[in-house]
Amino acid sequence: MTSKTLDPKFVLTLDRVLAAPVAKLWRCWTEPDLIRQWFCPKPWLVSEARIDLRPGGEFYTLMNGPDGERIPSLGVFLEVQPERLLVTTDAFRPGWRPNDQAFMVAEVRFAPEGEASTRYIARAMHWTEDAMRQHEEMGFHEGWNAAADQLEALAKTL
Amino acid sequence: MTSKTLDPKFVLTLDRVLAAPVAKLWRCWTEPDLIRQWFCPKPWLVSEARIDLRPGGEFYTLMNGPDGERIPSLGVFLEVQPERLLVTTDAFRPGWRPNDQAFMVAEVRFAPEGEASTRYIARAMHWTEDAMRQHEEMGFHEGWNAAADQLEALAKTL
Repeated sequence: MTSKTLDPKFVLTLDRVLAAPVAKLWRCWTEPDLIRQWFCPKPWLVSEARIDLRPGGEFYTLMNGPDGERIPSLGVFLEVQPERLLVTTDAFRPGWRPNDQAFMVAEVRFAPEGEASTRYIARAMHWTEDAMRQHEEMGFHEGWNAAADQLEALAKTL
Repeated sequence: MTSKTLDPKFVLTLDRVLAAPVAKLWRCWTEPDLIRQWFCPKPWLVSEARIDLRPGGEFYTLMNGPDGERIPSLGVFLEVQPERLLVTTDAFRPGWRPNDQAFMVAEVRFAPEGEASTRYIARAMHWTEDAMRQHEEMGFHEGWNAAADQLEALAKTL
């Protein structure tokens, strides 16, 4: 990994209030048929998702691009607090096997804001400054905001 | 990390039957006052230990060498199945913050062999071949065997 000390600059954060209740956002994050519908910004789409919602359980998505790109992402859940907190990483495969494609930890916090809205804080935490910069250049802010828009829109239909 | 695919050669394994029941070995692994007494081969000793036994909970040890060396190790538990399985890693600090000193995942399995003995399988799983080789050269086999001897001897006194 790196010899540098962890620094806040290794963390990218999305912090928004979404116009949907926590319970519906939680469903969108944890049901494979729902996560497929919002998890990556259109015109990309998730064609397959597997969710085993427990520490060490599998979190798999297969993203498909408009020109035939296929990007599989295999990781695990680190922590699950229903309707409050989800933590995932691609640093392990199921069975806690270290994964050669480790890139980040994603931490998503949900907190009610009244009955119909939710404070939604999603953090991408990286092992290295290079990984964080690469993620930012890949369009972290635009991408995670667009996905959150899709998440909010889907939750409203439930 | 590395671009190489994970390979079984990244894993170092200790597989023994210890002459103590599972419950006593579990106590030795999970109580700070006990883990201090066996966790590193003498003449090294652990002067401080903190154990927060849940996924994401802190696992901290401070090892002291005979010439005044001090080696702190800060990590977290990934999975806890009482008297069956413990998984820890130094890849995170508490709060799932990526840790710049990430080196390995340690998986320890306990299974009863009759009433007074336990099959004890401890695996060190590394992200890279270099880390695995470095661990082997540091004396993984001698060190983990010597610690297991100390663990067995301590458990017998409980």
